[in-house]
Amino acid sequence: MGRTRIEGLLEDVRRGELSVSDACERLRAFPEQDLGVALLDHGRELRTGAPEAVLAEGKTAEQVLAIARQIEETEGRVLVTRVDPSLAQRLVGTLRAGRHNPLGRTVCSGALAARGRGPVAVVCAGTADLPVAEEAGETLTFLGHRTERVHDVGVAGLHRVIARLDVLRRATVLIVVAGMEGALPSVIAGLVAAPVVAVPTSVGYGASFGGIAALLGMLNSCAAGVAVVNIDNGFGAASLASRIDASLT
Amino acid sequence: MGRTRIEGLLEDVRRGELSVSDACERLRAFPEQDLGVALLDHGRELRTGAPEAVLAEGKTAEQVLAIARQIEETEGRVLVTRVDPSLAQRLVGTLRAGRHNPLGRTVCSGALAARGRGPVAVVCAGTADLPVAEEAGETLTFLGHRTERVHDVGVAGLHRVIARLDVLRRATVLIVVAGMEGALPSVIAGLVAAPVVAVPTSVGYGASFGGIAALLGMLNSCAAGVAVVNIDNGFGAASLASRIDASLT
Amino acid sequence: MGRTRIEGLLEDVRRGELSVSDACERLRAFPEQDLGVALLDHGRELRTGAPEAVLAEGKTAEQVLAIARQIEETEGRVLVTRVDPSLAQRLVGTLRAGRHNPLGRTVCSGALAARGRGPVAVVCAGTADLPVAEEAGETLTFLGHRTERVHDVGVAGLHRVIARLDVLRRATVLIVVAGMEGALPSVIAGLVAAPVVAVPTSVGYGASFGGIAALLGMLNSCAAGVAVVNIDNGFGAASLASRIDASLT
Amino acid sequence: MGRTRIEGLLEDVRRGELSVSDACERLRAFPEQDLGVALLDHGRELRTGAPEAVLAEGKTAEQVLAIARQIEETEGRVLVTRVDPSLAQRLVGTLRAGRHNPLGRTVCSGALAARGRGPVAVVCAGTADLPVAEEAGETLTFLGHRTERVHDVGVAGLHRVIARLDVLRRATVLIVVAGMEGALPSVIAGLVAAPVVAVPTSVGYGASFGGIAALLGMLNSCAAGVAVVNIDNGFGAASLASRIDASLT
Amino acid sequence: MGRTRIEGLLEDVRRGELSVSDACERLRAFPEQDLGVALLDHGRELRTGAPEAVLAEGKTAEQVLAIARQIEETEGRVLVTRVDPSLAQRLVGTLRAGRHNPLGRTVCSGALAARGRGPVAVVCAGTADLPVAEEAGETLTFLGHRTERVHDVGVAGLHRVIARLDVLRRATVLIVVAGMEGALPSVIAGLVAAPVVAVPTSVGYGASFGGIAALLGMLNSCAAGVAVVNIDNGFGAASLASRIDASLT
Amino acid sequence: MGRTRIEGLLEDVRRGELSVSDACERLRAFPEQDLGVALLDHGRELRTGAPEAVLAEGKTAEQVLAIARQIEETEGRVLVTRVDPSLAQRLVGTLRAGRHNPLGRTVCSGALAARGRGPVAVVCAGTADLPVAEEAGETLTFLGHRTERVHDVGVAGLHRVIARLDVLRRATVLIVVAGMEGALPSVIAGLVAAPVVAVPTSVGYGASFGGIAALLGMLNSCAAGVAVVNIDNGFGAASLASRIDASLT
Amino acid sequence: MGRTRIEGLLEDVRRGELSVSDACERLRAFPEQDLGVALLDHGRELRTGAPEAVLAEGKTAEQVLAIARQIEETEGRVLVTRVDPSLAQRLVGTLRAGRHNPLGRTVCSGALAARGRGPVAVVCAGTADLPVAEEAGETLTFLGHRTERVHDVGVAGLHRVIARLDVLRRATVLIVVAGMEGALPSVIAGLVAAPVVAVPTSVGYGASFGGIAALLGMLNSCAAGVAVVNIDNGFGAASLASRIDASLT
Amino acid sequence: MGRTRIEGLLEDVRRGELSVSDACERLRAFPEQDLGVALLDHGRELRTGAPEAVLAEGKTAEQVLAIARQIEETEGRVLVTRVDPSLAQRLVGTLRAGRHNPLGRTVCSGALAARGRGPVAVVCAGTADLPVAEEAGETLTFLGHRTERVHDVGVAGLHRVIARLDVLRRATVLIVVAGMEGALPSVIAGLVAAPVVAVPTSVGYGASFGGIAALLGMLNSCAAGVAVVNIDNGFGAASLASRIDASLT
Repeated sequence: MGRTRIEGLLEDVRRGELSVSDACERLRAFPEQDLGVALLDHGRELRTGAPEAVLAEGKTAEQVLAIARQIEETEGRVLVTRVDPSLAQRLVGTLRAGRHNPLGRTVCSGALAARGRGPVAVVCAGTADLPVAEEAGETLTFLGHRTERVHDVGVAGLHRVIARLDVLRRATVLIVVAGMEGALPSVIAGLVAAPVVAVPTSVGYGASFGGIAALLGMLNSCAAGVAVVNIDNGFGAASLASRIDASLT
Repeated sequence: MGRTRIEGLLEDVRRGELSVSDACERLRAFPEQDLGVALLDHGRELRTGAPEAVLAEGKTAEQVLAIARQIEETEGRVLVTRVDPSLAQRLVGTLRAGRHNPLGRTVCSGALAARGRGPVAVVCAGTADLPVAEEAGETLTFLGHRTERVHDVGVAGLHRVIARLDVLRRATVLIVVAGMEGALPSVIAGLVAAPVVAVPTSVGYGASFGGIAALLGMLNSCAAGVAVVNIDNGFGAASLASRIDASLT
Repeated sequence: MGRTRIEGLLEDVRRGELSVSDACERLRAFPEQDLGVALLDHGRELRTGAPEAVLAEGKTAEQVLAIARQIEETEGRVLVTRVDPSLAQRLVGTLRAGRHNPLGRTVCSGALAARGRGPVAVVCAGTADLPVAEEAGETLTFLGHRTERVHDVGVAGLHRVIARLDVLRRATVLIVVAGMEGALPSVIAGLVAAPVVAVPTSVGYGASFGGIAALLGMLNSCAAGVAVVNIDNGFGAASLASRIDASLT
Repeated sequence: MGRTRIEGLLEDVRRGELSVSDACERLRAFPEQDLGVALLDHGRELRTGAPEAVLAEGKTAEQVLAIARQIEETEGRVLVTRVDPSLAQRLVGTLRAGRHNPLGRTVCSGALAARGRGPVAVVCAGTADLPVAEEAGETLTFLGHRTERVHDVGVAGLHRVIARLDVLRRATVLIVVAGMEGALPSVIAGLVAAPVVAVPTSVGYGASFGGIAALLGMLNSCAAGVAVVNIDNGFGAASLASRIDASLT
Repeated sequence: MGRTRIEGLLEDVRRGELSVSDACERLRAFPEQDLGVALLDHGRELRTGAPEAVLAEGKTAEQVLAIARQIEETEGRVLVTRVDPSLAQRLVGTLRAGRHNPLGRTVCSGALAARGRGPVAVVCAGTADLPVAEEAGETLTFLGHRTERVHDVGVAGLHRVIARLDVLRRATVLIVVAGMEGALPSVIAGLVAAPVVAVPTSVGYGASFGGIAALLGMLNSCAAGVAVVNIDNGFGAASLASRIDASLT
Repeated sequence: MGRTRIEGLLEDVRRGELSVSDACERLRAFPEQDLGVALLDHGRELRTGAPEAVLAEGKTAEQVLAIARQIEETEGRVLVTRVDPSLAQRLVGTLRAGRHNPLGRTVCSGALAARGRGPVAVVCAGTADLPVAEEAGETLTFLGHRTERVHDVGVAGLHRVIARLDVLRRATVLIVVAGMEGALPSVIAGLVAAPVVAVPTSVGYGASFGGIAALLGMLNSCAAGVAVVNIDNGFGAASLASRIDASLT
Repeated sequence: MGRTRIEGLLEDVRRGELSVSDACERLRAFPEQDLGVALLDHGRELRTGAPEAVLAEGKTAEQVLAIARQIEETEGRVLVTRVDPSLAQRLVGTLRAGRHNPLGRTVCSGALAARGRGPVAVVCAGTADLPVAEEAGETLTFLGHRTERVHDVGVAGLHRVIARLDVLRRATVLIVVAGMEGALPSVIAGLVAAPVVAVPTSVGYGASFGGIAALLGMLNSCAAGVAVVNIDNGFGAASLASRIDASLT
Repeated sequence: MGRTRIEGLLEDVRRGELSVSDACERLRAFPEQDLGVALLDHGRELRTGAPEAVLAEGKTAEQVLAIARQIEETEGRVLVTRVDPSLAQRLVGTLRAGRHNPLGRTVCSGALAARGRGPVAVVCAGTADLPVAEEAGETLTFLGHRTERVHDVGVAGLHRVIARLDVLRRATVLIVVAGMEGALPSVIAGLVAAPVVAVPTSVGYGASFGGIAALLGMLNSCAAGVAVVNIDNGFGAASLASRIDASLT
């Protein structure tokens, strides 16, 4: 404990057991050494409200398995994202309570206690955007939130959007997932009062440039109340939505 | 006259005044020399249905004035686009019947005879997109078409779009002008059966990148029936719309 | 049935079985709840003149098969684009009247009644651009239009373009498909009076950047009367051309 | 009044003065015609929780003055953003209660009633990022929120960030404004539990590409809980933060 | 035969077997109908000095085989570029005199008669750039030119460049192939008087962006006398070099 | 004088006035010290066939004036490019024989002796491309070549190109200057046998991106025999053309 | 003085004038409150070896003047970069010992004590790159290093580079400044053993894209031992070179 | 030996066995012919302090094996980078003392003698960045330097960075490897006085664009003392760090 250690040091100075010069040296090291430890004590969950998740992409299977097991052991739960089918099988076989969502490419074990007011709406423009929406949905469930899924509401068929207005309007926060021109968040943000987290997807071809078109569309939204996360970043959208909904608890 | 020259040559061959070999040599040159002249006879208007317009940008004032006067003299009418105020003043002072549209940055003299079925709808997402819409509208009027302007119908306020559905649906072709995320053409193309010509504008800031965001949004439209022209290219959109509407005459 | 439901409600009001106040409440819900259903009744075809097509890319085989079967069942016809060979085989085996165009990567069942005046010219710069041209051609046929194919007319061999001028000039609308520098639409639009829908393809290498070079070339066409669709978007070009030709019926 | 008109129509049906068939026709037109009017009644503020603001950029001074006056008249308050000094002077002279913030380039008249729990922290990496932070701050104040400004806390001097942890941690939502490499939101989101709205600025030179470097840095944040708005979009960040904080009322 | 046909027609006129009017009609059709055929007779080789080559990339194996056989049949020689190993095997098995260069990915049969003064130097910065250099070398040989290869002369080892100055200075034209930063053409063009054709390659990683870095480097050469072809375009560089060297015959 | 100095040193060795060891030391310094001087003696003109030109852009007026005077003094002639009007006036006033070409933005004094076979064709797509074409033309004249200008031959009016085929075909090398989609070099290279140097210009707007569209179009030319220089680089194109034409002397 | 203040506090504890509990409270505040101040005492200079400089760009004149005066007051010296002429005049008038370098756009007052072994070579490819080289040179002088300037050694004239090899080889670190294709660092890094800090400049036009071409060229250097800083970032290059040279003291 | 040959030549002149004129001719050839050989004698290691390494990427296995064997033979040691597993197996089987680092994708045989003061810190932001860090580490070991690895210190967990400050501060130079937003070098450079070599990695997804986001973040670092190498270029970072540390020997 940072404070206990500092008090001990000061006591030593007061009692003359530690010279001012030596104490000064040791104190100069504090902000850099014990601050870290102190923060590590509380951990990421204490600092930011959510435990660390494991992004499988870019790591070897062995690395992912080791990290996931360790987190499950320590924290009693773990979420792994961007898991390909063969790794998923190994994770489910290794974790104590691993569940695989093949569409969302997630494996998780356990979950946080229910929190937030919810529901968090996860809105999806097209069938091909579903994997990203599912990643967001699984993450929200893991983080303890109620979700409501709204699928297949593209801007070229406005009536479908309008038909779901009641669902859209009762959400505390909306995650809107869309590829191609990425116009759905603008349309929805003009219809609701809750914050909208826009997720561009890499769905599309040609001049969609792997999601850049959707990303730019969302960043340039003419509607107020829209913020954007990285392309295909369902996890990131859910993390932000979780912070918003959690503060309503 | 191409034909006259060829007939003369053939007469010379028939009369034995020109050898087959020499005639053959001179004919080999024809496609390259007189074809040009022949096509020039009919002119651009005959070939493509529309007279040449003058893009003032990138030309000196003297060049624009000279070209515009010459076209007005020859064809009895002329359209000059991208005219800054001082050039506009000189053009109006020089042309026989020059009219200046300051918002659309056009000067024109005369017009083509009325044609097409119309109306051609010119739809505009925001106040800042008006110059491009006006360029399109002036061009259509010059080319002999009836137009109907629909202003300020952004996707963040869907009700405004829906409120103008009757106007949108009676157009033979729609020019939809939008900056920022450029989502308006997708929304409109999902509501009407006529072709939609989308014009991205350079309106916006930051990641709109001078209209690239809107351009990409329009190219990736999830709605069928949308084609795109260059950023801020109101003239180009009007040219295409004119070809479409003119065929309905 | 939207209309039927509204008529029933009005009858109830007329017969005094529903109070004006209650009817008003239920009607206020219409735009958001039943409007969707009502519009679905008329359907996309009624609104936009063309039935919904299925883009196979980005969807699982199971999703495509289910959606295609459902549309064939409901509407009596269906078009699926971007179909790889193994999915094509399954689609042909599942649909009642599925036909596979391997070059165009389409499977369709049935077709719309003949319409438009036509022919729609589908012009193709090189052999490698044929898949995109075939996608456009198949879509046009499915949508009920007459087409005329013009292949292998690159700008580096102008004589081939000029040799086909009669075909180009009798089309009601021209789809011009080109990769590499994408200059063909400019050349053709200078020779004909009908609208030109330019389709950039990803054919090329190096600085073609997967079709960006052709796309930019087409957007910057110095010829009037050219509009552009997304890279490799044969379906989109055909959709626009269909709207144009259909209005000539 | 939408509802009034519908009630009148229903009364006509009930009284037999309007046939079911005619009423049905007129009702079918509702979603498209009167829905707009009805929604306009409630207005954007009712739908989305915030009144419309005026972006001065891209509009003529006359357009801005007219729009701002009209909104002030109708709604009793108005916010104008991206105002240059000469326009600001005219706005202040025209509006009944216009106040100019020269650093934030805003003019506003009136404000919404206090709401939210707050404070909303507006954190700024460098002196040159202040105009964007001020735009966000002014907007939040206009929208009725308490704000707390934290200036000059760049990542190259971590101690400054750590020194302000108490302020950062008591905010309900944090707007973090940074140019150059845009790393500040990642650092802060790792230290707090509230949602972080990252605003990239065009501050920088060379390979900052007018804010693209900061934008990409923020989109790729390795910290969870970060969402991004457009480059220099202080207004957009404030709009999102307002939606988040307002739901805590 | 174009000329033969025209001569026949003229003979008919001379002998009175064809009226001037009929001949005129048939000749007017030439530019658009028979011109194509006529030009095909003389062919690309007559117009541009080089026969058509076949780019295998983007074509099906069947298409390449058919086209190559037809050209070999008609013109007695053919060059196919960008040939993968399995297609190469089929081409060699099908053509009468097919030779495969695996490094250069070419198959050719026959060659043009020797021409030009030569040698054309083909200079290559690194081992990984060899395939592009070989494509250029094979093309030059096929087109009848003498070549001299200079390999492995990167700018980070200037002495290697200087050691080969005699070879570089006796070339009539130099093709300089380089990836990564693409600086070699600048260095060489400052040392010789002959024209330099720079070929950027996609060799590199990271911020080489598939050859863009080398391409930009070459386009921005501070040395006079450098022109650039597309990334990896060994064939294009050879075609240009051939035109230059051929004029020295 | 490099050679003179070396001869003197060798004479000293021969006469025994300089020891072999000392001479060796001084010679070892040559490549690094005197080589520069020696090469400067012969100069760039001896090495590369053309004297150094002065690019005024990016230099202060004082720097340009000093450099230009020095070169005129030493070499008897000088070419300065990218000269704005006020600098041009000062240059003409300072140089002994300065001539200003306002359209081409050049000032030159003197010229090289006539060389090459010529003419070099300078072909220009549009009026706005003239400054770049003039820069190329002036440079060629300064370097001693005959030029022939061909103006206003855009691809949207093919007949104009075909009408000038005789001029195009008698050139030893063609510089083709075009902005917008940059298709002109492809068309021309398909019609002539001489090498084509393509110059993209920054003429255009929107998605022309300051000449990138034209640059990419030219790099992706489907015609053989085209090489490209930097955007607006009339000087560079002329330098390459000069090297090609000069070798025909 | 941070250390002094901590020592004072400890002395107070030792002498019993401050209770352990109170001291603990005040020390706990250090990392977040006084740590900042403490670190400011030691300052950036103690942590990183160099005092903070003021980048004038993006700040108002008033802000720059205030910050510069404060740093001069506190630290006895200050460096301001990117100063335009009018601001420079005011700075020189305000600071106690301000010196203006107009070419390098710097104003500095005082300097650090001499350190490092040096010389640091500042190598510059062309006259137009001089402002960036001067910014680097002034910064190095301010930071206490010996510099040696090598100007006008472009890669198109290798002899100039080779002629200066002795200077290049005696430097402890080399800053190489180049625009256009940015090839100079590759060439130099192949000739010396010291680290090379490459600075791309925005010098160039067309496809130099404001320095991107040079930046990419440098990042893709085929020579080992090259690192790159931001475009035009002479200050950054000097900062790194200073750290390298300073460690040789 | 260059010098030997020159001495021989001078002796011949001194003895009258070679005329001054002939000697002059042969000496003029020196810089171009024997300079190369002379420099080759000393070799790259003498010029730049490090032997040539072999980049396996882009070369055939046969080419890599042959080059690596030859260097090992000649120089007694060799480093091969970017080696895939199957090539690694062949290299280890072929070289006399090949060692494979699978994570770093290197094979090396032998090493340089220990040099520098060290340690060189190799700091790594995330698990997925390890391959690049290992490439850097292996290269440094091969070049004779002591290294210290610091793993998994991302900016979203500042305490981890601060906890390792002692290690970071005792390094003579720091290589900092990071993907995603690439903010770690800025944070570290603000805490230490030694030079920081930043290595962006292609780790990330979506808008990380294969490392561009990290690259731009590092180039725009707001901290002084940071230089950048190419994306994933662990070898390049180690080469620069080696030059810096080696000068401290």
